[in-house]
Amino acid sequence: MTYHAPVADMRFYLDRVLGADRLAATALFAEATADTAEAILAEASRLAQDVLAPLNRAGDLHPARLENGVVRTSPGFASGYRAIAEGGWVGMSGAPDWGGMGLPMTLATCVNEMMASACLSLSLNPLMTQGQIEALEHHAADDIRDLYLPKLNSGEWTGTMNLTEPQAGSDVGALRTKAEPNVDGTYAITGQKIYISWGDHDMAGNVCHLVLARLPDGAPGTRGISLFLVPKFIPDAQGRPGVANSLRPISLEHKMGLHGSPTAVMEYDRATGWLVGPPQGGMAAMFTMMNNARLGVGVQGLSQAEAAFQKALAYARDRRQGRSPLAEGTGTILDHADVRRMLMTMKALTVMVRAICLDCAFSLDMARAAETGQEAWAARGAVLTPIAKAFGTDTGCRVAELGVQVHGGMGYVEETGAAQFYRDVRVTAIYEGTNGIQAMDLVARKLADGGAAQRALLDEVGATVRAASAAHPDLADTLDAARQALEETVTAFVAAPDLNERFAGATPYLRAFGLTLGGHYLLKAALAGDADRLALARFGIRHLLPEVPALCASARAGAEDLYALSPEALAS
Amino acid sequence: MTYHAPVADMRFYLDRVLGADRLAATALFAEATADTAEAILAEASRLAQDVLAPLNRAGDLHPARLENGVVRTSPGFASGYRAIAEGGWVGMSGAPDWGGMGLPMTLATCVNEMMASACLSLSLNPLMTQGQIEALEHHAADDIRDLYLPKLNSGEWTGTMNLTEPQAGSDVGALRTKAEPNVDGTYAITGQKIYISWGDHDMAGNVCHLVLARLPDGAPGTRGISLFLVPKFIPDAQGRPGVANSLRPISLEHKMGLHGSPTAVMEYDRATGWLVGPPQGGMAAMFTMMNNARLGVGVQGLSQAEAAFQKALAYARDRRQGRSPLAEGTGTILDHADVRRMLMTMKALTVMVRAICLDCAFSLDMARAAETGQEAWAARGAVLTPIAKAFGTDTGCRVAELGVQVHGGMGYVEETGAAQFYRDVRVTAIYEGTNGIQAMDLVARKLADGGAAQRALLDEVGATVRAASAAHPDLADTLDAARQALEETVTAFVAAPDLNERFAGATPYLRAFGLTLGGHYLLKAALAGDADRLALARFGIRHLLPEVPALCASARAGAEDLYALSPEALAS
Repeated sequence: MTYHAPVADMRFYLDRVLGADRLAATALFAEATADTAEAILAEASRLAQDVLAPLNRAGDLHPARLENGVVRTSPGFASGYRAIAEGGWVGMSGAPDWGGMGLPMTLATCVNEMMASACLSLSLNPLMTQGQIEALEHHAADDIRDLYLPKLNSGEWTGTMNLTEPQAGSDVGALRTKAEPNVDGTYAITGQKIYISWGDHDMAGNVCHLVLARLPDGAPGTRGISLFLVPKFIPDAQGRPGVANSLRPISLEHKMGLHGSPTAVMEYDRATGWLVGPPQGGMAAMFTMMNNARLGVGVQGLSQAEAAFQKALAYARDRRQGRSPLAEGTGTILDHADVRRMLMTMKALTVMVRAICLDCAFSLDMARAAETGQEAWAARGAVLTPIAKAFGTDTGCRVAELGVQVHGGMGYVEETGAAQFYRDVRVTAIYEGTNGIQAMDLVARKLADGGAAQRALLDEVGATVRAASAAHPDLADTLDAARQALEETVTAFVAAPDLNERFAGATPYLRAFGLTLGGHYLLKAALAGDADRLALARFGIRHLLPEVPALCASARAGAEDLYALSPEALAS
Repeated sequence: MTYHAPVADMRFYLDRVLGADRLAATALFAEATADTAEAILAEASRLAQDVLAPLNRAGDLHPARLENGVVRTSPGFASGYRAIAEGGWVGMSGAPDWGGMGLPMTLATCVNEMMASACLSLSLNPLMTQGQIEALEHHAADDIRDLYLPKLNSGEWTGTMNLTEPQAGSDVGALRTKAEPNVDGTYAITGQKIYISWGDHDMAGNVCHLVLARLPDGAPGTRGISLFLVPKFIPDAQGRPGVANSLRPISLEHKMGLHGSPTAVMEYDRATGWLVGPPQGGMAAMFTMMNNARLGVGVQGLSQAEAAFQKALAYARDRRQGRSPLAEGTGTILDHADVRRMLMTMKALTVMVRAICLDCAFSLDMARAAETGQEAWAARGAVLTPIAKAFGTDTGCRVAELGVQVHGGMGYVEETGAAQFYRDVRVTAIYEGTNGIQAMDLVARKLADGGAAQRALLDEVGATVRAASAAHPDLADTLDAARQALEETVTAFVAAPDLNERFAGATPYLRAFGLTLGGHYLLKAALAGDADRLALARFGIRHLLPEVPALCASARAGAEDLYALSPEALAS
C-alpha cells in the first residue's frame, strides 16, 4: 500500500463547499480555472505518489549527516528534489515576473499537502524556499529580487529561515546575532542560529539564508531587528554562485523524527549579507514569511494525518483477527466497533483540518485578488491561520497516534511506517511558533478588532446551522451549541481587562474553534454532497463536537487555578 | 535534574485517601505496618534514583542486540538488574514459602512505579517475572513450584510470557503452537511466538518461558489452549541450569522506543516444556498472570507520566524566555499561563492515575486478605484493572506528549530525554491487551453483574460529592454531573441487547470513568489535605471533568454512526 493523493476530496471542498471557484473570476487568478486546477492536481499527485512517497522511509533510516563541513542528504532525496524543482513546484505560488507559476495559495496548499504526505522531510525544503520567495517579493530591493527570485522559483537555489538562537526561541527579541555595515553597503553578519531546517545540503547550487540580526544601533527587543539575505555562495555579477561566504553548519540535531530533514546549527562569522526591507524592519518582513509558513505547517499536520489514516485503513482492511461481531462482516479488524471508531475519528478530523487549511488559503488569496472587501478576507485569513497551524498539527499528532493504535503491536515496530508518522509529525506542533503561541495569537492580536472577525466566522457557522436545521435538526443543534459556547467565550475574552486571563484559556479555546469550524465544514459538505458526506458529518458532529462546550468552560475558567500552586508545590 | 521518587504523595494517598492502612489490620498483611511501608519505600526510592535512573538513556542509545544467537543487553543493565534482584524487589510480592517478601500488591505497586519511572525498559524484566511467579504459585504443581519459585523470587532466573503469534494477537485463540506429549510426562513444544519482552538476555542464569500452546486433541479457539513452562536451560535435579533447551530468539524488533528492552521472536523446536495447570486450562492460568500484568502496565503509564512531568517542570523552572506576564514572576517560562496549564494538566492527570492504580492494587490485596467481603473487593479490583491499564497508559502518553511540548524545540531533540519518554511509553497503550480491548472488557465482562460493581464505585463518588458539597459546592456539582452521566451510561449499556452497541462506546466510556474517579480522588485528597491539595482538585475538576458528559454522549451514541461508511467509502 502506498500513498494515494486525495484529489477528489480536495476538489469537492474547493468547488462545492468553499466556493473557491470564485478565484477564477478575479483578474489576478483568472487562469486558475477548473481545468487548470484539475491538471495541476493530477500532475502533483503523480509526483507525490510515484516519486516522493518511495523516499519517505529511506529518509528515516538514513538521516542526513554532516561530513567534512557539508551536509549529505538521504539516499534518493537529491533526485526527488530535482523532480520537485523541474515540475515548477518550488515556485508554484511565486510571481510570474520572476519565473513563478503564480498559482493561488489555495492550489499550492493542495500540492504542498500531497508532497508532505508523501515525504514530509523532503517537502520541508521547498516549503522554506516558498516562504523566502514571498518575503523577498514583498520586501527586497529590485536588484536582490532580480538576482535571487528566478533562482529560487526554479529551485536551482533553496532558502532557509534563521530566527532562533539558544536564548531566543519564542522570544525572538532576545537575539544577539549582529550585523555591522561594510563600506560597500553590505553587512557583516556574526552569530549562531539554531534549528535551521535544511540549513545546508547537497541538492542545489546555493543555500540562501534569511537571517534576523541586530544593527549596531538597533533598539533592544523585537523593534530593533533587521532582516538580511546571506547566501552560502556569493553570486557573481552573472548570478553564478561564486566565492564561499563565511558561514557553516556546525552540527545537526539528533531528532525524534524527520530524520531526512537536516536541522542545523549555523555559524556566521562576519558573513556577507544584504539588507532586506528597511533597517529595523526585520520583524515585519519575517512575519510575511512566517504567516504563510504557519499555514504551511498546519498543512504538514494535515498531510501526516492523511497519510497515517490511509496506512491504518489499509492495515485494518487487511488484518484478520478475532471473531467478527457482525453478521456479515469483512472478517478483518475493520468489523470491530472500536477500530471503526478510531478510523472514523481519524477521517473526520483529517477532513475537518483540510477544510480549515483550504479555507485559510482561499481567504489569503482573496485578500489579494478580490475586487472588494480585501480587508475582510485578510482578517478572515488572519483568524484562520493560527487555527490551521495549531489545530492542524495537533490533529496530525492525534491521528498519527490513532494510526499507531490501529496497528496494534505492528504500530510500535518501525517496519510498518506508522511509527514514523507519529515521530515525524510531532515537531509540527512546536516549530513555526509553538501551538501555545498560536493560541495566544488567536486570543490577543486576533481579537484586537473587538472580536469582529471571529464573530463573522461564527456567523457563517450560524448560517450553516440554519441551512441544516430542517433536514438534520439534531446535527444543527449540536453545532449550534458549539457555536454559542464559542460566542460567549469571545464576549468574555473581549471583556477581560487582563490579557493573561485570555492566555489562560487560549489553548482550549483554539481547539474548540477548530472543532466547531470542522463540524461546520462537514455539515456544509453533507448539504452539498451524498450520503457518505452525511455519514461523516454525523459522526464528526455527534462524537467530536460535544467536547466544545467543555473546552469553552475550561477556556473561561480564568488564570487563577493555573497559578494556585507555587513552583515548590508543583514539584512536591 | 534526575528522577525524584514521589514517596510523600504515595504515602498521602495510601494512608489519608484510600485507607490502605487497613491492610496491616489483616492477618495476611499484618507485617505491612506504616513503619515497614516507610522503610520499603525509602529503600526502593534510593534504588530507583541512584542506580536505575542513570541507566535510562544508555538503554535508549545502545539497544539490546542479538549476537550469535544470544541477546546482549544495554551497558549497565546487568548490574542494575543485580541491584534489583539483590534488594529482593523481583520477589517482593511472592509468597514467603518460596522466598518472596510477601508484600501487599499495594506496596509493590509503589515500588514498581519508581523502578519504571527510573528506567522503564529494565523494569519490564522483573515485572514479567512477577507475573510468572503469580501464575506458578496459583497453577503449577508442587515440584515445579519448589524448583522454580525460589529462583524466580531471588531474581536468579527471570520469566517471560509467550502468547502472541503473527496471526494470533488480540485473538489469542487463533494460536498454532503445538504441544505433544513426551513419554516422560513432559511436552514437546513447537511454534513461533512474537513480541516476547526480555525473551532472552545475559543478565541472569536462566530464562523461563510460560508458553501458550495447543495439545494434539485441544479444542479450537481459546478453550483448547494449555500453558507450559519452557526454560532456556533445563534444570538438573539440584535445580542448576543444565542442558540448553531447543528454543532460541531468532530476531529482535526494531521498535519506536523501549530500546533497552529486547523484544524477541522466539522459536520453539520440540522444546521441552512442563504443563502448568490442567490440560486445556491455559487461558485461566494466563489470566491470573495477565490481570496483574495489566495493573502493572497501567503503572508503567503512570511511571512515565511522573517522570515526564518532573523533567518538564524542571525545564520550565530553569528556562528563561520572553517577558513575564506577571508583576512578580519567576522570570522563567513557568510564568506563562499556557505553560502552567500544561504542567497543571500533567500533574493532575498523574496524581489521578496514581490514585486509581493504588486503589486497584489495594482492592486486589483486600480480595485476598479481608476477613469479610472478599468478593466485593475482588469485583472492585476487577473493574479498576482495565481502567488502571487503559486510562493509566493513555495518560502516560498524553503527559509525555505535553512534556515534549513544554520543552519546545528542545523536546524534539533527543538529548533532553523528553522525547524518550514519549517514544517509550507509547507501547504501554498497546501491549498486555490494547486499550481498546480493556475498554471492551469494562463494558462486557465487567458489566456481567448487571452493573453492580461499577455502580458501587459510583456510589463512592457520590459519597465524596456529599462530603464536599458544603465546603466546595462548585467542585461537588461538577463531579456529580460526571457521576450522573456515567450512571446513566451504565444503565443504558446494561439495557443494550446487542453487545456491539456497548463496544461502540467503550473507549469514551472508560476514559469518562477514569476522569471521574480521578476527580473523586483529587477531591477526597483535598478534604483530607492542605491548600495545595485543594488547588490541584480545583484545577482537575474545573478543567478536566467537564469533558465527562461529552464523552458519555459519545459513548451512548451507538454503533450505527461507526459503520455508516463502507470500507470503500472510508478509503475514498
